[in-house]
Amino acid sequence: MNLDELTARLHAIRDQNDWRQFHSPKNLAMAASVEMAELVEIFQWLSEDQSRQLPAEKLAHAGQEVGDIVLYLLLLCAELGLDMDAVVRAKLADSERRFT
Amino acid sequence: MNLDELTARLHAIRDQNDWRQFHSPKNLAMAASVEMAELVEIFQWLSEDQSRQLPAEKLAHAGQEVGDIVLYLLLLCAELGLDMDAVVRAKLADSERRFT
Amino acid sequence: MNLDELTARLHAIRDQNDWRQFHSPKNLAMAASVEMAELVEIFQWLSEDQSRQLPAEKLAHAGQEVGDIVLYLLLLCAELGLDMDAVVRAKLADSERRFT
Amino acid sequence: MNLDELTARLHAIRDQNDWRQFHSPKNLAMAASVEMAELVEIFQWLSEDQSRQLPAEKLAHAGQEVGDIVLYLLLLCAELGLDMDAVVRAKLADSERRFT
Repeated sequence: MNLDELTARLHAIRDQNDWRQFHSPKNLAMAASVEMAELVEIFQWLSEDQSRQLPAEKLAHAGQEVGDIVLYLLLLCAELGLDMDAVVRAKLADSERRFT
Repeated sequence: MNLDELTARLHAIRDQNDWRQFHSPKNLAMAASVEMAELVEIFQWLSEDQSRQLPAEKLAHAGQEVGDIVLYLLLLCAELGLDMDAVVRAKLADSERRFT
Repeated sequence: MNLDELTARLHAIRDQNDWRQFHSPKNLAMAASVEMAELVEIFQWLSEDQSRQLPAEKLAHAGQEVGDIVLYLLLLCAELGLDMDAVVRAKLADSERRFT
Repeated sequence: MNLDELTARLHAIRDQNDWRQFHSPKNLAMAASVEMAELVEIFQWLSEDQSRQLPAEKLAHAGQEVGDIVLYLLLLCAELGLDMDAVVRAKLADSERRFT
């Protein structure tokens, strides 16, 4: 996943719509959390087994919500000056130390 | 970000701990949403301006939470058979169509 | 707020629709969290000042989401055998001890 | 549940700690959502059946989180000028119309 390219394209959309004023880290975290709940909503009344066998329409919906979340997290990382790849690798290395 | 490599390392941790039984998409979405709230918590009492100038400790904490969220989303995508890069690109292309 | 009356009416709706099978505490907590995000969504792009002066339509929407959350929490308390009034009072007394 | 009494006691704690400045509806909704996620966290790795039979410690924890959520919602309702009992009753009446 080419994070620099994705971020540049997100910033182009943002700037063309004059949205930067709304993109405080506080607001972007809220927006990401709202998209996350839309992902959770897909699963809320399903059994765990059903969640492993989503029908095509729900699966496509889940993909859209994952996309929304990752895009907001990329915008958030850019505002905070965080490198998503680096923070993900740091957390993964930490889990490897603790759990393997 | 090398999604295949990250996912393989996540699966190694998961399998070494016999966690697959817990990793239904339903549970992974819940877990991701809990990490998301830990990200939101960093910002809840800050003004938008303060959220743009996080002190180093809070910034590091934010990075850890972003890491946790992305890792759970990678596990979720693997369970659902979704390609994170593809769903992110599809959503971005959709936003480009709608907003530019 | 008459919690027993509200809970009895919720259970009547639930039973008439054969929804009890879906009302595990796990699912009810998820559902409440989704409604909570719908409340958060109202505020995500507003400044704090704007959030203090909601237009009538957004205010009505906020009320609906608060209603949804409280109703799911009542269903959850009933499933868990918790008395909402008692747990709220216990938490408030705890805050009084710690912060006053 | 005596909402007026509970709200008055919450406001006493708030004012004694000079917290009103932080209590914008935006922030209170965020704070409530964080407490909600702490409730969800209790259930994230449990099966639905396990969630119906919480051990005493987890049940007490769930009660504390429900308490936190309701208290933040009461503060939010007070800031917005919403009557929690009225909005809950309106939503319940709406569900009765739609589902019974």
